Amino acid sequence: MKRLDIFGLLKKDMAHIEQELFRSIEGDHELLNETSMHLLKAGGKRLRPVFVLMGGKFGHYDLEKLKHVAVPLELIHMASLVHDDVIDDADTRRGQLTVKSRWDNRIAMYTGDYIYARALQLATELPNPQIHQILSKAMVEMSIGEMEQIRDFFNIEQSVRRYLLRIRRKTALLIAISCQLGAVAAEADRKVGQLLYRYGYNVGMAFQIQDDLLDLCGTEKQIGKPPGSDMRQGNITLPVIYALQDEKVRVPLIQEIKRIHELNGECDVSAAVNMIKASRGISQAENLGSRYIQKALYALNELPDNRTKKNLKDIAHFVTKRSY
Amino acid sequence: MKRLDIFGLLKKDMAHIEQELFRSIEGDHELLNETSMHLLKAGGKRLRPVFVLMGGKFGHYDLEKLKHVAVPLELIHMASLVHDDVIDDADTRRGQLTVKSRWDNRIAMYTGDYIYARALQLATELPNPQIHQILSKAMVEMSIGEMEQIRDFFNIEQSVRRYLLRIRRKTALLIAISCQLGAVAAEADRKVGQLLYRYGYNVGMAFQIQDDLLDLCGTEKQIGKPPGSDMRQGNITLPVIYALQDEKVRVPLIQEIKRIHELNGECDVSAAVNMIKASRGISQAENLGSRYIQKALYALNELPDNRTKKNLKDIAHFVTKRSY
Repeated sequence: MKRLDIFGLLKKDMAHIEQELFRSIEGDHELLNETSMHLLKAGGKRLRPVFVLMGGKFGHYDLEKLKHVAVPLELIHMASLVHDDVIDDADTRRGQLTVKSRWDNRIAMYTGDYIYARALQLATELPNPQIHQILSKAMVEMSIGEMEQIRDFFNIEQSVRRYLLRIRRKTALLIAISCQLGAVAAEADRKVGQLLYRYGYNVGMAFQIQDDLLDLCGTEKQIGKPPGSDMRQGNITLPVIYALQDEKVRVPLIQEIKRIHELNGECDVSAAVNMIKASRGISQAENLGSRYIQKALYALNELPDNRTKKNLKDIAHFVTKRSY
Repeated sequence: MKRLDIFGLLKKDMAHIEQELFRSIEGDHELLNETSMHLLKAGGKRLRPVFVLMGGKFGHYDLEKLKHVAVPLELIHMASLVHDDVIDDADTRRGQLTVKSRWDNRIAMYTGDYIYARALQLATELPNPQIHQILSKAMVEMSIGEMEQIRDFFNIEQSVRRYLLRIRRKTALLIAISCQLGAVAAEADRKVGQLLYRYGYNVGMAFQIQDDLLDLCGTEKQIGKPPGSDMRQGNITLPVIYALQDEKVRVPLIQEIKRIHELNGECDVSAAVNMIKASRGISQAENLGSRYIQKALYALNELPDNRTKKNLKDIAHFVTKRSY
């Protein structure tokens, strides 16, 4: 299934959102325009705006209102990525040079600050304080998640629970509120917003688990960066945590991770990646991802039947099968 | 005049705001608690909350409402400082180790992100979209100002106008909206909010000019950091721009600035500082500061006479005389 098959219904509206995204960061500051445009042009799946529009289908769908949520959510996601690249010391993302690499860390930091602030400014144009509350609360959680990630780099003793808490904050919450805020902006029933939140949360968890699996099992062409990037950064993901519980590979894998840590990730990580692939880690992570998808589908059950509900089901099924 | 003489009337309420500031950053994340506490404990004049409370005196003064503006404004200021320290590579501020120096740049960046987000979360608890709009717009401007500052480092050709535009975004706007939002939260007349904005804007401009003068003319004890710090960072401030227009010192001063630039600021800057002090730069900057104070006083004229108006006058007179 291709992206456009799923989003076909929304194609025209998503083209409008894309325009609005570009307009949103246009300002009279040349350097900020350049860095922000660079980020936007690097692309991305625009998953969050799509979820907003789909959420809107459960209420009074009004693109002019929905864009004030859809654009900010994509901007918040982008801003978090540009700050992430500073932390990860990443030179490329989606096959493109990162802002910190093409310019520098300081410029990346302020580009992120600018995009965060623009996101909020756009959202506050919609005079609904509940939306502002949900957005700012999610930003608090995201920043905590980012900080946790730093602390957990190369921490081989972390639990599955700790990993799940981290990706909840890092990824799942923003997807959850994307679904929810679409419904809130369209003045759908409160209950609908809650169910969409639950759907988005579980899809988001599965999405991040799949991302972490792709980083180990995907090709550079599929994922837009060299495989094993997480390993190099010391980002201990779910398949790694499970692999570390597998007696067959635990001891040599710990040794490899320690070596990578000592070399600050500037080394070949394929030995570690292969150990993880040979362990039970991959299938266990896939299973947990599938369980989140089941929960997402379960949340959909109670929603009214319509074309969008079918699309949301398709997306859920697609998440664990995607290769990009 | 001491801080407590001016703020005597608000002493009790400011103690409550101080408590709320500490409460606002308390969370269940240990490292974020540590870094945020470290920032709060380093102190500061709490100028923005004081202005919020004073603005509130022109309407229905309600501390429980005002704190939802006062605390976020101080938090936004703090967050901007911690990101500033990353850029400036500053090891101390107010005589204390900076977050980036005690921890590292990545932790400082996320501490800033966290505090920004907490600020917004608190402000959105007040269900007044106008307040959210004013706050987020100011954050956009601030982030543009920060970026401009990076671009202008060691730029000896910059105009006075460019400097003024930068400090407008960097300092004056946040002080302007502190005064205004106090009035807005207290539901004062729209006109009162506008006058307070104008007062705060002009006081803010004078305040930053005075800060830049102190960095050259103050002692380490007075300003909590070695004098000439701006010079070392390449932050070309108003007295420097004026000094560069003074034929007596222009050529040797340019040479000194170039030398400092080449050495990345890791050198003695007292020769440059002394040249600026011997030029017309200091008195010209002082004069411009005084003109902003006159404008601030002028904005006060139209406000109703009360005790707070008298205090605002005292603060305006104090700004250009302060030595800390």
